[in-house]
Amino acid sequence: MKQQCVVVKIGGNVLDSPRDLEQFLDSFAALPSPKILVHGGGKLATELSAKLDIPTQMVEGRRVTNAETLNIVTMVYGGLINKSLVAALQHRRCNALGVTGTDAALIQAHKRRSVVDYGFVGDIDAVNISTIQELFAIGLSLVIAPLTADTETGTLLNTNADTIASAVASALAEVYEVHCWYCFEKHGVLASVDDEGSVIPQLTFEQYQTLKARGAVVKGMIPKLDAAFSALRAGVQRVKICHASALSAYTTNTSNGTVLVIS
Amino acid sequence: MKQQCVVVKIGGNVLDSPRDLEQFLDSFAALPSPKILVHGGGKLATELSAKLDIPTQMVEGRRVTNAETLNIVTMVYGGLINKSLVAALQHRRCNALGVTGTDAALIQAHKRRSVVDYGFVGDIDAVNISTIQELFAIGLSLVIAPLTADTETGTLLNTNADTIASAVASALAEVYEVHCWYCFEKHGVLASVDDEGSVIPQLTFEQYQTLKARGAVVKGMIPKLDAAFSALRAGVQRVKICHASALSAYTTNTSNGTVLVIS
Repeated sequence: MKQQCVVVKIGGNVLDSPRDLEQFLDSFAALPSPKILVHGGGKLATELSAKLDIPTQMVEGRRVTNAETLNIVTMVYGGLINKSLVAALQHRRCNALGVTGTDAALIQAHKRRSVVDYGFVGDIDAVNISTIQELFAIGLSLVIAPLTADTETGTLLNTNADTIASAVASALAEVYEVHCWYCFEKHGVLASVDDEGSVIPQLTFEQYQTLKARGAVVKGMIPKLDAAFSALRAGVQRVKICHASALSAYTTNTSNGTVLVIS
Repeated sequence: MKQQCVVVKIGGNVLDSPRDLEQFLDSFAALPSPKILVHGGGKLATELSAKLDIPTQMVEGRRVTNAETLNIVTMVYGGLINKSLVAALQHRRCNALGVTGTDAALIQAHKRRSVVDYGFVGDIDAVNISTIQELFAIGLSLVIAPLTADTETGTLLNTNADTIASAVASALAEVYEVHCWYCFEKHGVLASVDDEGSVIPQLTFEQYQTLKARGAVVKGMIPKLDAAFSALRAGVQRVKICHASALSAYTTNTSNGTVLVIS
């Protein structure tokens, strides 16, 4: 039987709420090891860009990471958020190590190649499971910031946190029984966008496609669910979309949030 | 015979010069392992503070790290500089891991207690040698940003990079033959402040006191030499103050810079 390993993604909105974040960090610190926390960005990067008069560049409706924006996200994601989370977890006696994908060559990536130039954005090629296992063996819990570097050029790259969580969970599924929780500010996947009570307890890929077709799943939920289903298909044992507060019930396995299921 | 270990401190002015930095990173990547790079801050933090209209707060002639400044240095030191160095070293096939003192509980520290409140400034209590050895054993080279956290409160703390290099080198001297190089923009300790040709090849603590008394060693060089002599007294095999370009001659042991000697 494979050892259990938990990969938790925490969304930006939770990072922006000190009280929710404190409670979430208590829950994460209490989880059994080995474990990994992948964090998003929150409003801080946008706020800092605004203060520094760095305009948000959009191409075909999508944000472009230019050189100035890359510096901002490196500072905010790799510095302020990552190190604050590590210090807060260490304070909770959780032996956290903050990393990006380039640290210890944990994630191999390349600058996105597409017709539209999204700038300094990374797509993941591989996850270095053996180094992660060696870091686990030292007793460390990883806190991963959503940054990688282009292996060829050494340039840092802005990289989607949901995708990092999915790629890391998928790679680890080769050697661990992986549980991957996408924690955010909603209570799960909702049947009706505006009804917090309409959480769908179990969701198949086909049901997800139906929800998407009728506009019940929109915006950021689409890439999140794509990443989450990708982890499920890669052999991750349990993939859950839930509120950050639900993590406190990890060990009791209480029914909450949306569990993705193979149809 | 103890295994050799190199601790290199790189000063802020070198970080500000892309060409010098590239050459320095080539030299660091070529050093034998195990090795540690400790970096300072450079002008970036000051520039960012100015752009964000965060005033520099001084008490009795010394800079105070208030909450806003702490966020700036966490972003710049822990994020932008640290992750850029890691990506550049990884690109040079040096398996770098970027950390602060709080990551993996590498450095225990506390908020400075003094009559003057310097704000969020850290003083070092202990260095976790065993975890550093475990990270070395995985094949990692550490890149340390000048930040620690207060073990009691979990608050991040601005911490002098020269002091971190000294404390880390001193602790490692228990188990390694440590060579500690302070690399910066000058060619060593100068007998005359303005004469770059007046490098003193060997310097005892007594000679340092004499230089200080007659005003030849001033400003930032004083805490740097205090930290460097502290490492020498703690059993570090070789402590050198030199230009960043001198690191290329590490293995050839060419005479350059200032070597500190026990009188």
